[in-house]
Amino acid sequence: MTLLDEKFERLATDDAPGQEVRQRSGDLSAFMIGRHLPGVPVDFSHGDVDAFEPAPGAIDVFVRGVQLGGKRAYTEYRGDADLRQDVAAKLTRFTGAAVSASDSLIVTPGTQGALFLAIASTVASGDKVAIVRPDYFANQKLVEFFGGVIVPVGLAYLGTNSDAGIDLSGLEDAFKVGAKVFVFSNPNNPTGAVYGEAEIEAIARLAGRYGVTVIVDQLYSRMIFDGRHYAHLHAADIEPGRIVTIIGPSKTESLSGYRVGVAFGSPAIVTRMEKLQAIVSLRAAGYSQSVLQTWFSEPAGWMDERIRLHQAIRDDLHTRFAAIDGVNVLRPRGGSYLFPQLPRLSVPYADFVRILRHQAAVTVTPGTEFSPACGNCIRLNFSQAHGPAVHAVERIIELIERYRS
Amino acid sequence: MTLLDEKFERLATDDAPGQEVRQRSGDLSAFMIGRHLPGVPVDFSHGDVDAFEPAPGAIDVFVRGVQLGGKRAYTEYRGDADLRQDVAAKLTRFTGAAVSASDSLIVTPGTQGALFLAIASTVASGDKVAIVRPDYFANQKLVEFFGGVIVPVGLAYLGTNSDAGIDLSGLEDAFKVGAKVFVFSNPNNPTGAVYGEAEIEAIARLAGRYGVTVIVDQLYSRMIFDGRHYAHLHAADIEPGRIVTIIGPSKTESLSGYRVGVAFGSPAIVTRMEKLQAIVSLRAAGYSQSVLQTWFSEPAGWMDERIRLHQAIRDDLHTRFAAIDGVNVLRPRGGSYLFPQLPRLSVPYADFVRILRHQAAVTVTPGTEFSPACGNCIRLNFSQAHGPAVHAVERIIELIERYRS
Repeated sequence: MTLLDEKFERLATDDAPGQEVRQRSGDLSAFMIGRHLPGVPVDFSHGDVDAFEPAPGAIDVFVRGVQLGGKRAYTEYRGDADLRQDVAAKLTRFTGAAVSASDSLIVTPGTQGALFLAIASTVASGDKVAIVRPDYFANQKLVEFFGGVIVPVGLAYLGTNSDAGIDLSGLEDAFKVGAKVFVFSNPNNPTGAVYGEAEIEAIARLAGRYGVTVIVDQLYSRMIFDGRHYAHLHAADIEPGRIVTIIGPSKTESLSGYRVGVAFGSPAIVTRMEKLQAIVSLRAAGYSQSVLQTWFSEPAGWMDERIRLHQAIRDDLHTRFAAIDGVNVLRPRGGSYLFPQLPRLSVPYADFVRILRHQAAVTVTPGTEFSPACGNCIRLNFSQAHGPAVHAVERIIELIERYRS
Repeated sequence: MTLLDEKFERLATDDAPGQEVRQRSGDLSAFMIGRHLPGVPVDFSHGDVDAFEPAPGAIDVFVRGVQLGGKRAYTEYRGDADLRQDVAAKLTRFTGAAVSASDSLIVTPGTQGALFLAIASTVASGDKVAIVRPDYFANQKLVEFFGGVIVPVGLAYLGTNSDAGIDLSGLEDAFKVGAKVFVFSNPNNPTGAVYGEAEIEAIARLAGRYGVTVIVDQLYSRMIFDGRHYAHLHAADIEPGRIVTIIGPSKTESLSGYRVGVAFGSPAIVTRMEKLQAIVSLRAAGYSQSVLQTWFSEPAGWMDERIRLHQAIRDDLHTRFAAIDGVNVLRPRGGSYLFPQLPRLSVPYADFVRILRHQAAVTVTPGTEFSPACGNCIRLNFSQAHGPAVHAVERIIELIERYRS
């Protein structure tokens, strides 16, 4: 097996959200207990953009972008200058700290694109990188792809206080043993934990003290529940140039189909990201960049209403899971993911995930995608049609009881 | 300087097409001779999608894609299954050899995205890679980014016969010294040379004999002039699984603003490309994928007319350059690039490129982007409004005479 074979062996995507369609369903009949559970199929592996439509206007600004022709088709690699100006002003307001359109902002092919470019720009072979567990699966895969060495940092998200529960002394230990980059998502994907102000300040302080670059994925930072305060690491950057923040008009705004994200922060890292973008995909699709105009410019009350509706689904789903004996689950404080830890079952959890799909028409993402220690968890994106989502969770629960060991 | 610093040092994009806007103009006045030349600004660094509009229907199928919602927003990482089916059938007809929608085709964020994924999937640190000189600048940058070692292969494109002029014994030597991957563009970017049938067959035979993977970038393979026959390497694949072909609805079709490309060929490599796409940008923008429907389905005669118009511009531009003493230039046989070699000038060629921009409002790409040996060449994308393009070339010629040494 060559080095490259091993590298791609680690990049398995069979269980990645949306890829289930490529799995052979195999012979599940040997494991299956009882009959199929009827119901509307629900795919919790990602949000349902049909259930939650984008704010009005996205398609209109897109069409106007096409009419702009070459100017919008061939933007700078870091994105159209006019749009960057607009977005920088919005992000300055959102985060409470200045974002420069000319030097510290890049438009990317989705937030995944931003994450790839940011990690590629900061992690070389052999570098130690601190990663939270559990966290978004691509963080770990990206670090491994570039030959980085992962130093895991714990997240006691089921703790009793309202912080995310990051192990700050574990983080400092990671920095002490030489981690030069720290990557995390806030709100945490998959758990829905949100980092408290004191946690964010501590991360900024430690990064400054140890000279660490921090990449924070804030994809869901507009979707914060219960009127909770959200602390931006960008605003806590005590030594400018250490932090890159990633965000974009995506699932929260139902604009994922346009594939546009942004990264902002350290000008030196943004410059590297642009150089790399030149050979990775040149730029985010020019015409798609246009939808940035509608981002943070939704009609008054639109985002509040979206948050209210998601909070209501969250409550209905969380209450049902929390009532089950042996299930541990955080009531998400932000984002649109629920991450229940299941009781012991009579089948391997990996098979249970396949059983859910074939016996109950419910797709979820196995916890192993987020941490090797989370094999007994499943992730649900609850940005779905409310009624079918509740019914699908009831089917999951019925199967948990059926397969309980 | 760290390893990563060096890596990004090599990724300089200041002279890359479209990035000129980020250059400080510096003090050119010390070099400049005479007055500015008035005229409509022409940017030859890329095609003008305003001069050549896309075939009708692209925006309509895009809007229908948006209306499909989640199904189109969240495709498999390798692209929407229905669209792949359609495209595979079209590419089977175009190349004359079967393309499988399920196993050997991936939709990518532009052809640049395909090139990135293909090279990342085949080149590991220390691997030798054969690269034609001159050729598309990103080929070399990508190989270097992944730590590959370049083995250059010559292209005698100014030779007298009608082949591209690849040095086949040089190519075999590269394979003999251990190159396991060969990357080239056909039509050649920047020269407009097109590989002859015998050259393509020889490349396939050598690749088979030495177990080499070949990545061929056919972005411009629909734009072939003078009724010339075009030989597809895909159809010459004597040992299936050795070849990946890259193409997309882009400049030729004026659809670059949607950023969609495809790669097809070796199922093993396509599988790797998909795994990598999962962490690079998830997928080509879902809604943009829709425009693949209009590709190869243009109204009867549409492509012929487009070729005719480009051929006419080519002739007018080529004739003017060819008439100049000391200029060597191939009359392009495909694509939309012209690559004149300039006579000796009284200023460095790099400064002459900047002078063209500031004194004549003409943007060209310096030859050094394509080969270290092509410092005396400039590349022009002649997919432009005909009249202004001719006038811009007349201004270039006037400045060549003014700065001739």
